[in-house]
Amino acid sequence: MRHAVILAGGSGTRLWPASRRARPKQFLSLGGSESLLAATARRARAAASHVQIVTAASQAALAEDEVPDATIVAEPIGRNTAAALGLAAVRLLQQDPDAIMGALPADQFIRDEAAFAQTIDRAFTAAETGDVICTIGIAPTRPETGFGWLEVGAPTAMPGVNEVARFVEKPDLATAEQYLASGRYLWNGGMFFCRAQRLLDDIHRLLPMTGAALDEIARDPSAAARVYGSMPSISIDHGVMEKTHDVVTIRGDFGWDDVGSWAAVPAVRGPDGQDEHGNTILGDAAICVDGGGNVIACDAGTTVVLVGVSDLVVVQAGDAILVVPRDRAQDVRKAVDALAARGMDRYL
Amino acid sequence: MRHAVILAGGSGTRLWPASRRARPKQFLSLGGSESLLAATARRARAAASHVQIVTAASQAALAEDEVPDATIVAEPIGRNTAAALGLAAVRLLQQDPDAIMGALPADQFIRDEAAFAQTIDRAFTAAETGDVICTIGIAPTRPETGFGWLEVGAPTAMPGVNEVARFVEKPDLATAEQYLASGRYLWNGGMFFCRAQRLLDDIHRLLPMTGAALDEIARDPSAAARVYGSMPSISIDHGVMEKTHDVVTIRGDFGWDDVGSWAAVPAVRGPDGQDEHGNTILGDAAICVDGGGNVIACDAGTTVVLVGVSDLVVVQAGDAILVVPRDRAQDVRKAVDALAARGMDRYL
Repeated sequence: MRHAVILAGGSGTRLWPASRRARPKQFLSLGGSESLLAATARRARAAASHVQIVTAASQAALAEDEVPDATIVAEPIGRNTAAALGLAAVRLLQQDPDAIMGALPADQFIRDEAAFAQTIDRAFTAAETGDVICTIGIAPTRPETGFGWLEVGAPTAMPGVNEVARFVEKPDLATAEQYLASGRYLWNGGMFFCRAQRLLDDIHRLLPMTGAALDEIARDPSAAARVYGSMPSISIDHGVMEKTHDVVTIRGDFGWDDVGSWAAVPAVRGPDGQDEHGNTILGDAAICVDGGGNVIACDAGTTVVLVGVSDLVVVQAGDAILVVPRDRAQDVRKAVDALAARGMDRYL
Repeated sequence: MRHAVILAGGSGTRLWPASRRARPKQFLSLGGSESLLAATARRARAAASHVQIVTAASQAALAEDEVPDATIVAEPIGRNTAAALGLAAVRLLQQDPDAIMGALPADQFIRDEAAFAQTIDRAFTAAETGDVICTIGIAPTRPETGFGWLEVGAPTAMPGVNEVARFVEKPDLATAEQYLASGRYLWNGGMFFCRAQRLLDDIHRLLPMTGAALDEIARDPSAAARVYGSMPSISIDHGVMEKTHDVVTIRGDFGWDDVGSWAAVPAVRGPDGQDEHGNTILGDAAICVDGGGNVIACDAGTTVVLVGVSDLVVVQAGDAILVVPRDRAQDVRKAVDALAARGMDRYL
């Protein structure tokens, strides 16, 4: 059976002040009608018969509210994606020894949902057909330095499915521009599909401490609280994907973006989400006069008015307001750090 | 008897969103512990035995709350300062035929309150001693194009009191720089002192329609609602001061500024009101990281965090937020107009 496994363990402050420690970004709607998490679950159902959400114990209730018919798997502490996906595989195999899992980040945006459904259907099929881990390689639209990339290798026997020659870390701009121009590189969007047993076997081979802890949890689920901390905090990319064999990829071209910072919101919303001056406005009562390229968000019942400024992020959410240049949107971290340093955790 | 007459008829949106139609700027504290109006009244009492506040009928209750022991004179509609001060003079003369009045704007900032008290004491004395209108000419600190100026004329018999050679309109920058360099020009701060009867005589002579309406109000205060609109809307400067005789001035050097826009707030607060990067912060929980020269204000219980921006005005007050470059602070008008044009008057 095909299981979507949604990774929803975000720490919560990359989209501060909309996202908070108690309400990470996957629970935000960012101007749409459904949360990122609910949208991810809805899209997954186009190709998967079951949805599992792996999240922090503190966010399990929120996740259940958002996606009532999903299975919620709560991690006692966060140990990065290798542990989270290992835990998911263990749980799936207990119910379904032939489980095929499709890992999906909770915080992605997808414009063409029909194309996305076709693509993940093909990826599930590839995982069912062969002993492979099938990633989705996103057709790149810009020389993005914030993502990992993958190099496309030789064709396989399956039409449209190629080997992955190698995974590459976040490149510098010059390298990213080469990748984009070459046509041989795709973005690593963090989505992959394989038999749950295949993933667990890889973890045992490549991450033996993680494998041992997962074995304990398989024997006694209540052991998780005790053994979870013994697992190394490592990503599935570093821990497994870059080292294992038979990793393949399907090109995905469906208007994808991650929602990693406020700077990503304009891409996520697309041209239709912007006014004639390139302002991206989330909120009924936000106004920009004499300025363009801003990202503005505010709660219902609040107005934000910008006059004569451009390329700024201005976000009001609840009791907090952030102002940062759009090209420094990653520095939301500095805002969060400054608040923490002053003991103003109530705003985090 | 010496009466301070505080002009508090501001229309309310120059410091939006802190100031609103229903709560104009004279009722704001701008980070201090008392409102501009309350501070003006307190300072006036250093030299005056009675305080009268002329304000819009819609703001009379607010004014009374702020300065409970003042006499509140409510105008049915605003007709500029000649009408407001004529009404004040009529009311004073009914109680005190020898009333000496000292007109003070409600929205001024004064750093050295002892020097201010000495200066207005001398101005009251000048008005008691001779048949003069005695203005305070503010020692200029910059080539300000937003104020009127006055040219200092010959000395009078009273030490430190000079004739006013002429009033000049808001000058262009080159002219303002000449004024500043010459040492012969002072800012017109809108403060002047004279017998109430002298002012009323001048109004009768120079603004006969205003004088006639004031006569009706003197006979029957309830006539105000009917006749107020018949008075021309003209400032006391244009209507009387520039045309009458025996206008004198005392130099005032007490750290004065008007509070005309958010851009003025740093001057008002002074160097002590700024952090080491020149940020002026009103509000306990406003933070600026990697930026300088900003003016930031927010309500208690709300945080505003700026990262990597400089020379911006960022103000949160209640349900509204304004972001505008400091050198375009006068464009708050555009924010207000944009909200009005969209029917979003609830935020005004």
